[in-house]
Amino acid sequence: MSTTPLSPTDRTILRRNRARARTDRSALYEILDEGLICHLGVVVDGTPRVIPTAYGRIDDTLYVHGSTGAASLRAAPSQEICVTVTHLDGIVLARALFHHSVNYRSAIVYGVPRNVTDPDEKLAGLRAITERLAPGRWDTARRPTPKEMAATSVLAVSLEEASVKTREGGPNDDDEDYALDVWAGVLPVHQAFGDPVPDPRLRPGIPVPPDIAGRA
Amino acid sequence: MSTTPLSPTDRTILRRNRARARTDRSALYEILDEGLICHLGVVVDGTPRVIPTAYGRIDDTLYVHGSTGAASLRAAPSQEICVTVTHLDGIVLARALFHHSVNYRSAIVYGVPRNVTDPDEKLAGLRAITERLAPGRWDTARRPTPKEMAATSVLAVSLEEASVKTREGGPNDDDEDYALDVWAGVLPVHQAFGDPVPDPRLRPGIPVPPDIAGRA
Repeated sequence: MSTTPLSPTDRTILRRNRARARTDRSALYEILDEGLICHLGVVVDGTPRVIPTAYGRIDDTLYVHGSTGAASLRAAPSQEICVTVTHLDGIVLARALFHHSVNYRSAIVYGVPRNVTDPDEKLAGLRAITERLAPGRWDTARRPTPKEMAATSVLAVSLEEASVKTREGGPNDDDEDYALDVWAGVLPVHQAFGDPVPDPRLRPGIPVPPDIAGRA
Repeated sequence: MSTTPLSPTDRTILRRNRARARTDRSALYEILDEGLICHLGVVVDGTPRVIPTAYGRIDDTLYVHGSTGAASLRAAPSQEICVTVTHLDGIVLARALFHHSVNYRSAIVYGVPRNVTDPDEKLAGLRAITERLAPGRWDTARRPTPKEMAATSVLAVSLEEASVKTREGGPNDDDEDYALDVWAGVLPVHQAFGDPVPDPRLRPGIPVPPDIAGRA
């Protein structure tokens, strides 16, 4: 567990609900290493655009990828972007509607992305993205061809500037509301995997690999 | 089911993977009415900020709320924002790494938010947000006091300008790769509820209401 602090900047210091701020870097890594997709924010023609996409992490670098034809990725390297990963952990049901809330862990990363051109880093970045979504596949599926690599953009964002915010635990009601005849507590929420669905064109005799079956 | 088309604007017409675009308004409603949180994009000091938050929908208006003290909400009414709701439905495991993908449904809404000041609309917006996260609670939990209402900002965004993108089904591999000895298919992903956890301070004898127990 890294205990290197997150580097506070004006916009990553939480002003509200400060008790929810986490300032150790390991909390950032944990959130990023548990997610499947992020929400990437870019500014296009002066207005924000928020796009769900895959991502991966190597040390203090976050990688996202896309087609070289995607407008949002083409615009990105010249300007700052924001990458947010959120885990919704529960719905907090208080006695008062005003105190309803959610339990969550979220990481927000700011940075000017770097277009990755070094072939080794590009491959490593793609591997990190693949391993995040589909651990084990890098070693079993067909690797990218040079043509496929050329059709793929990989962007790297430093994790230097990031904030982490979490909420956990039960509701916090006003003192006088604890006497109310209202159920209160937390409804846990989590992401779950179903049973793998084989491709109809799967060749007979190929079993579901353990790394996929084991997630279901 | 509404068959009113989504109104195409330059930025909501998909240029890539057009087969994934949905152009009927009912697809937008379905995605919004199934989500628990959205990712709200705002521009702060010229750079994007992406924040997870609750939301609700009434007809063609989307509502988000927050403390009147939140900087991102204070900045929002003067500028365009982006609201994205994403459902991750599966991890698409192709024979080639290049064709790995995800099944998903996502809605992206653009608009200049309106600060809701009309008391009736403000209450209706809060109710829509509450019902999205915690159906049934509006009728059982304590309603907001005037002081609590004053401490809460509600923003309304028109659903006029929105795009919907979905992917479903199995992998699409290159012809020559179907002969490979690699398992291919989809690993379904869904959001699931756990067993309700009562607040330690819950008064004895209050059972879990059916609307909460029924989701687990």
